[in-house]
Amino acid sequence: MALEPVLSQIDEDISTATERLMDLLRIPSISTDPAYKADCDSAADWLVADLKSMGVDAAKRETPGHPMVVGHINDAPAGAPHVLFYGHYDVQPVDPLDLWDNPPFEPQLEETEHGTVIRGRGSSDDKGQLMTFVEACRAWKAVHGTLPCRITFFFEGEEESGSPSLIPFLEAHREELQADLALVCDTSMVSRGVPSIASQLRGMLKDEFTLTGPRIDLHSGHYGGPGLNPLREMSRIVDSFYNDETGAVAVEGFYEGVHEVPADQLRQWENCGFDEAEYLNSVGYTKAHGEKGYSTLEQQWARPTLEVNGLWGGYNGVGSKTVLPSKAHCKITCRLVGDMDPDKLRDKIRKHVEDRLSTDISVEWDNDLEGSPASVMNLDRPEFEAARGALSDEWNREAVFTGMGGSIPVVGYFNTILGLDSMLVGYANDDDAIHSPNEKYDLKSFHKGIRSWARIMDAIAK
Amino acid sequence: MALEPVLSQIDEDISTATERLMDLLRIPSISTDPAYKADCDSAADWLVADLKSMGVDAAKRETPGHPMVVGHINDAPAGAPHVLFYGHYDVQPVDPLDLWDNPPFEPQLEETEHGTVIRGRGSSDDKGQLMTFVEACRAWKAVHGTLPCRITFFFEGEEESGSPSLIPFLEAHREELQADLALVCDTSMVSRGVPSIASQLRGMLKDEFTLTGPRIDLHSGHYGGPGLNPLREMSRIVDSFYNDETGAVAVEGFYEGVHEVPADQLRQWENCGFDEAEYLNSVGYTKAHGEKGYSTLEQQWARPTLEVNGLWGGYNGVGSKTVLPSKAHCKITCRLVGDMDPDKLRDKIRKHVEDRLSTDISVEWDNDLEGSPASVMNLDRPEFEAARGALSDEWNREAVFTGMGGSIPVVGYFNTILGLDSMLVGYANDDDAIHSPNEKYDLKSFHKGIRSWARIMDAIAK
Repeated sequence: MALEPVLSQIDEDISTATERLMDLLRIPSISTDPAYKADCDSAADWLVADLKSMGVDAAKRETPGHPMVVGHINDAPAGAPHVLFYGHYDVQPVDPLDLWDNPPFEPQLEETEHGTVIRGRGSSDDKGQLMTFVEACRAWKAVHGTLPCRITFFFEGEEESGSPSLIPFLEAHREELQADLALVCDTSMVSRGVPSIASQLRGMLKDEFTLTGPRIDLHSGHYGGPGLNPLREMSRIVDSFYNDETGAVAVEGFYEGVHEVPADQLRQWENCGFDEAEYLNSVGYTKAHGEKGYSTLEQQWARPTLEVNGLWGGYNGVGSKTVLPSKAHCKITCRLVGDMDPDKLRDKIRKHVEDRLSTDISVEWDNDLEGSPASVMNLDRPEFEAARGALSDEWNREAVFTGMGGSIPVVGYFNTILGLDSMLVGYANDDDAIHSPNEKYDLKSFHKGIRSWARIMDAIAK
Repeated sequence: MALEPVLSQIDEDISTATERLMDLLRIPSISTDPAYKADCDSAADWLVADLKSMGVDAAKRETPGHPMVVGHINDAPAGAPHVLFYGHYDVQPVDPLDLWDNPPFEPQLEETEHGTVIRGRGSSDDKGQLMTFVEACRAWKAVHGTLPCRITFFFEGEEESGSPSLIPFLEAHREELQADLALVCDTSMVSRGVPSIASQLRGMLKDEFTLTGPRIDLHSGHYGGPGLNPLREMSRIVDSFYNDETGAVAVEGFYEGVHEVPADQLRQWENCGFDEAEYLNSVGYTKAHGEKGYSTLEQQWARPTLEVNGLWGGYNGVGSKTVLPSKAHCKITCRLVGDMDPDKLRDKIRKHVEDRLSTDISVEWDNDLEGSPASVMNLDRPEFEAARGALSDEWNREAVFTGMGGSIPVVGYFNTILGLDSMLVGYANDDDAIHSPNEKYDLKSFHKGIRSWARIMDAIAK
């Protein structure tokens, strides 16, 4: 089947495709906050209806958490490859809301120095990226009435909240979700205009703990002095996580399972068009603050981290309150690489904290948080070479294999539970401000992303 | 004029007096939160009406902030002493609200192991204590038709929010507020049933700062590693405030102006009935955590502190958010002793922080927060001996001169602006949970507190 008319159809349909994306962006499907449960449901319904409109046998599938969306279509020529396409329809919380220039769920087109962007929560992570593949399929159907590949769509609604329902769902539907290869669109380009295929992902460990000192909040005039303040204790313990000389994490055994990056891979990364200064300066850094002796890309792609995502205790309202608080709270996440074991790492971090607790301070841990190991892609598969060619054709720039600082646990589960390799192609840019106020997705990423998937499907079908 | 019938009148009227206090406690006069401005006004109106009902020439006096209440009554025999009575009608915020067993502004009587208590925000700090003096005056008027002393009532509505209007008001009304001695009822008893007169108070310095790292909140997968987290920086800086070996504050020059307590005063403190174990255990401490080498009472009354009252940044909502936050915030207060200068101390603390900032981290300070030096009372005045006798008679226990860990800046201002000495007598107990959830005031403190003021007025009038 001819590719060119499909690409033309995509160009003609782009403004309508953008409207469809905006409809999806208007649904505040924040998965981590129970208050938005109904909205997550609505987003799933919207996707089911959209897939059905192009002849996909799609349905919303209930879970104990937010629903999955699964769709099947098999109108491809006999012997065509079978791909499982994954994306997630849930989005991050929007706070701090006051830093948004426009309401996060009232998406709009804006002109910027880098061209038109689609502004709104989820535009880049991941609704916009998810829709690049859906729109590519729509164009194939419109032009040829069929698709070049057999396709199973698999959309999740809990990616931003730890995917609690994912493993049981995959285990319960092993047969239904079988395919030759998983395609994932949730990654970014190493730099503007450089098509990128992620060859490795960092894993993730989440934990949260609360330190309790006095039974109740105390008056700092009565107990300030003899009383031990859990915020002081928390500061001491968080500070002890790090070695300020080397920039490394100081938790004993933290780097167990971490491997150095092979020299040839390092060379590739150094030549992949990544602009270190732009990457750091764009957010207000003048230098890389991670482990000394490692480049910014190594710190981001190949080194583990222990990050404090939230820390709070005492009075944070208007004015002042002379209180010595009873509790201090801390949320942390670690990014894992190589063979780091999330469960062993959790134990090491908890031991680090417990070994350092002062008398009269107790710690409680949140035991509902999960971890996932790092992933390395199977670059020997022919689909990777096919995709590299297709992307290079679309972007007039040699596509590159990159690392990834983020974590996409589903890739590991596809492998361990479904026995599936994954290929990660995404069109986001570093300045998309995902997880931040004023998230956006370049219209160019959306448009050329759709065209890229059309080309990739064509290439791997050959 | 005979004292005994006044004391009997107080006993007969105690349940009605308790009802009046509960009316005042129902008004949520939280001064630090602008949302409660109208309530602060209502509390002032309530007090004006109550004073007028007993023949006091009272009026609400507007300020740029919350109003003052000033009342005069001069029906005492010629040559009677003139006292200025001070209390505050504003209260602390009530968060964390979920830790209150009953709504904080729906006061009620409760039976406890220590007898009946009046439960509710402000019951002890300071509405209940303020009303002990008002009720004592009411009883004198009811029995004798006159008061034994000439009295000026002076009630403030900004004590819990730094008293921004106090200094200008005192300066503008020097003449009107003249008296022989100021009486202040905002302190506690050194231990249950031991009448106490505060001989020294700690001063107070408030400050607040915000650390800013990246321009925006960042994705911890993209910038975790090269990015410097302001929460990590905040933890390092807060930890650097303290010397964990000695328990002392590590800010250079912090102890300038601090004097050791004379041996004879230390001996008095050791014999004043203070139960150190009970004081610490009641809130969950097994030992004193302050400066090594100083007793709990010294740490509380005679040593300065640097306390973190609030620390926050990043995500603190439900679930997890993989964010590297842009900002971290910290509220601190210091308790000052001896000749410590609040302004010099503020400079030392700010220099300590600024000297330790990492590249790419900036700090902003809140410049609207004030400080006040420590105060030492003039125990040579005859009124102190008179009050000590009156209190000893009422409580059947030798009254003691104690230190105070808290700060009552007005005492310093009465001295520097009005040229007035102050005498501080209060009936609160350490377990009153002031500034905390479930604040209470013992009915015994209220009842015997009223009787105590009746006796003190009688004694100093002689």
